[in-house]
Amino acid sequence: MKLYDFAGAPNPRRVRIFIAEKGLDIPVETVDVRGGANRTAEFRTEKNPLGLLPVLELDDGTPLSESVAICRYLESIAPEPPLLGVDGRDVAEVEMWNRRMEWELFKNVGHYFRNTAPMFAERYVQLPEAADEARRLSRECLRWLDGVLADREFVAGPRFTIADVTALVAIDLGTPSVLEIAPEQRNLARWHEAVSARPSSRA
Amino acid sequence: MKLYDFAGAPNPRRVRIFIAEKGLDIPVETVDVRGGANRTAEFRTEKNPLGLLPVLELDDGTPLSESVAICRYLESIAPEPPLLGVDGRDVAEVEMWNRRMEWELFKNVGHYFRNTAPMFAERYVQLPEAADEARRLSRECLRWLDGVLADREFVAGPRFTIADVTALVAIDLGTPSVLEIAPEQRNLARWHEAVSARPSSRA
Repeated sequence: MKLYDFAGAPNPRRVRIFIAEKGLDIPVETVDVRGGANRTAEFRTEKNPLGLLPVLELDDGTPLSESVAICRYLESIAPEPPLLGVDGRDVAEVEMWNRRMEWELFKNVGHYFRNTAPMFAERYVQLPEAADEARRLSRECLRWLDGVLADREFVAGPRFTIADVTALVAIDLGTPSVLEIAPEQRNLARWHEAVSARPSSRA
Repeated sequence: MKLYDFAGAPNPRRVRIFIAEKGLDIPVETVDVRGGANRTAEFRTEKNPLGLLPVLELDDGTPLSESVAICRYLESIAPEPPLLGVDGRDVAEVEMWNRRMEWELFKNVGHYFRNTAPMFAERYVQLPEAADEARRLSRECLRWLDGVLADREFVAGPRFTIADVTALVAIDLGTPSVLEIAPEQRNLARWHEAVSARPSSRA
């Protein structure tokens, strides 16, 4: 296997953290995103038609993309420690929490940058008001998440899961231009300190 | 089990189609979304803190939300026919395609309505230019998807999966105000006719 990666982007970091938590050793090839290597016809034909990273190349050469799809494949070949749930019902609850983090937090932080960062100016119509709205929604999600974490150690419950990975990556990406954990958000701060102290967070 | 449902919304339809494909018989309770019943403190406390539908109430009363989390739970208790993949690798590929349909198509159709429909005016800052951009991106996805379907029967390959459900619901929701299958998009038209002919599409 080989992971096509780019250090500065949030989705590759989700997969790198997942790999680190699993203790897997997967060769990495950095794609020159700033130079547009992921937008070439060759990359789209051979790796991902959407021109997005990360891509996991399987041993037979098949390219697999979409971060959570890659994580689910890795969970199937390396089940321990479980990061996507431990049985049918728990898998569903972890998915619920991961999706909440994706659609309420990760998506909004991403939309802020899509609407403001020069690197996206060619692909998207950038609207300052859409960036403001994305920032507002991401902060609203943080306030809610602080309350959620009042009575649980991790986002999806008592175990570290992919929902923590998604939330951590979104918050780290968004800090400080989009959002910030406020001093009064003590549950969130405690959680962020704990997940950031895991060796995988350096991935 | 009980499904909290609303007939006019796309996410509940995804779950209803999934249930119909499984041949499951799950009691349904309609929530008065137009009257704001899903935004009440009671609904948020007891069913879904985000105030969104659908919600599947399990037999012990636990509420499960997020459509694909609900579908994954149903797949675990009713594996046939498999709609989320048949083995570790196939599950990952189906997830990849479902996520492509969600993030490139479903999300953009949803953002169009979020930015234009009166029912969302209280919750979101509505921007006509953001609606235009969402429409442009959803149409770009349709053009790509037409090419994808040139050499495969369904979105994720030879079998009907959740990726077809997501694409069908997004396209039907978006037609004709956001997007439309163009006469020259013959692969897409063939696929849409086939999935619409399945009894589940009436769910």
